[in-house]
Amino acid sequence: MKLNCPMPVLDYDIITLGHGSGGLLTNRLLDKTIFDILQNDKLETRHDGAILPLEGKYAFSTDSFVISPIFFPGGDIGELAVNGTVNDIAMCGAIPQYLSLGFIIEEGLKMEEFWDVLIGIKYACEKAGVQIVTGDTKVVEKGSGDKIFVNTTGIGVLHPKANIGSENIKVGDKIIVSGNIATHGVAILSVRKGLEFETTIESDTRNLNFIVKELLDEYGEDIHLFRDPTRGGVAATLNEIARDIQQGIELKQIALPIDSQVDAACEILGLDPLYVANEGIFIAFVDGSIADELLKKLKKMTYGEDAQIIGEVSSDHPGKVIIESAIGGKRVVNMQVGEQLPRIC
Amino acid sequence: MKLNCPMPVLDYDIITLGHGSGGLLTNRLLDKTIFDILQNDKLETRHDGAILPLEGKYAFSTDSFVISPIFFPGGDIGELAVNGTVNDIAMCGAIPQYLSLGFIIEEGLKMEEFWDVLIGIKYACEKAGVQIVTGDTKVVEKGSGDKIFVNTTGIGVLHPKANIGSENIKVGDKIIVSGNIATHGVAILSVRKGLEFETTIESDTRNLNFIVKELLDEYGEDIHLFRDPTRGGVAATLNEIARDIQQGIELKQIALPIDSQVDAACEILGLDPLYVANEGIFIAFVDGSIADELLKKLKKMTYGEDAQIIGEVSSDHPGKVIIESAIGGKRVVNMQVGEQLPRIC
Repeated sequence: MKLNCPMPVLDYDIITLGHGSGGLLTNRLLDKTIFDILQNDKLETRHDGAILPLEGKYAFSTDSFVISPIFFPGGDIGELAVNGTVNDIAMCGAIPQYLSLGFIIEEGLKMEEFWDVLIGIKYACEKAGVQIVTGDTKVVEKGSGDKIFVNTTGIGVLHPKANIGSENIKVGDKIIVSGNIATHGVAILSVRKGLEFETTIESDTRNLNFIVKELLDEYGEDIHLFRDPTRGGVAATLNEIARDIQQGIELKQIALPIDSQVDAACEILGLDPLYVANEGIFIAFVDGSIADELLKKLKKMTYGEDAQIIGEVSSDHPGKVIIESAIGGKRVVNMQVGEQLPRIC
Repeated sequence: MKLNCPMPVLDYDIITLGHGSGGLLTNRLLDKTIFDILQNDKLETRHDGAILPLEGKYAFSTDSFVISPIFFPGGDIGELAVNGTVNDIAMCGAIPQYLSLGFIIEEGLKMEEFWDVLIGIKYACEKAGVQIVTGDTKVVEKGSGDKIFVNTTGIGVLHPKANIGSENIKVGDKIIVSGNIATHGVAILSVRKGLEFETTIESDTRNLNFIVKELLDEYGEDIHLFRDPTRGGVAATLNEIARDIQQGIELKQIALPIDSQVDAACEILGLDPLYVANEGIFIAFVDGSIADELLKKLKKMTYGEDAQIIGEVSSDHPGKVIIESAIGGKRVVNMQVGEQLPRIC
């Protein structure tokens, strides 16, 4: 366990419909668990919402997490839900500060599991330096949900030097990925029912807000775009960007950082790592002139050790992503049509 | 239909897992539905989040909606999800402005139903004067959800004259309810499987932000608290407040506004209307000196026509809610323990 938070004594071993009633059971549960473990001055008012003093430009982002299983190598749905929204805010060039937290719990969830999810949330909040300031808990009947779904919505103040937007991208921009690709997806697959295989691969769920801030402090407007290639992987993210900017994107296969176990697992499972979900890496489009220097710096930061320049923006084949293999062959990387791996986040 | 928005031609009749993949199907669905129907300048950037200029004190609130059925007399889950968060923001004494929108869809949802939910959202946003500025769509396998769950999280600027907080409540404060109680819960019950009964009762889902603003314009700090008695009804809300302020709350049964059909349905079903959920009313604690005048004004406003003073704050029986019957008998109104009516919102 990441935090030493012993579970409180509760009247129930499982979550019941009554815990979502808004009545006494709800109140007792919230007092003994959520309010106790996540306490801060804003949560304490227990009103319908939190009051926040804000001043300037803010990023606002939401994500629902429906990952299965809810506990997986390297993390849990609680940690993922905090990191996911923290990273979405960071990708806007902002510094995440406040999160809301919404639970949809399936009747019958073990209280112990709920507690462990809360610990994951607390741990991730502390690591990322954000606060849960308001929340909501609903319970649905058995069979109308799947253990627990978590929504987080975040607010963060824009970095004063940030100017993030696909409209800033130009031909010659270098594309940097901050870490190994495909790790999260393969970690989840390794524990999926009917597919379990043994590896030491762990999800890369983690908060990227501090390295993003450090890069913005240093390189400001020379960073044209941040994106985290979650669902749909690097391929989906780059295809969306290529379509938006109506320029081409050229990747070098050999430059893609990938863990050898992950690579082997992808080969065995017939997955292209470009399409596998990530949680703890970003893709940055940066001015060609500072790319090498930025990469050098990034590689020295926590979570940036495996960063690589994986390609660049080109005026050829606008709207398309092209990858060059180790032996020089080129192919188009399309966006996948449907679902390679459901409920990966 | 509330808005004349013909459904676009789509490749699929139902939502599939692929629509939640983050790939081509997701992109096509979002383009043709959500982005098209809810379009505004902030959604257009299609980044991970929206950038909002904010200045001052803001209320921030979240709610997940899991109501069953998703279409009901007087509304649908989309409308409810917008109004619910709009009202939570208003209850903080703030003017709602921006919402995020998170869908968790069960594979197999009819595209037509999804479209109708979106229309409900658009309609409610227009009525309340708020914008959806960022969102997220997840799809879970059949049997892991129930049609569609909706999370909305909102931001609104605090009214300059608002000073809302249970710490402002004092003995002698009058308690005003803005409309008929128990309507929403009974409307939902009337269409629940196995319980259908015929009435013309419709849910009271509606946005309260404009009447709240008008009252704050006029009475500012003399309004000590707003709350919307949703899940758990008037009883749960007043019990929470009584506990917070450690004063007593005294209600008069005869003063409780209730529609005669709703009253009759509650009697037949053995429900106490005080415990039945509401969506479109608020409870206000106001200074005794302005209560009559405020009530008079409120009764002239849209959605305030049925408002009543239902009781007051007393120094007797601290922490408890007491109700006096028509013939003078008094009883304690406890918070309900468990669930009277699951998935009511």
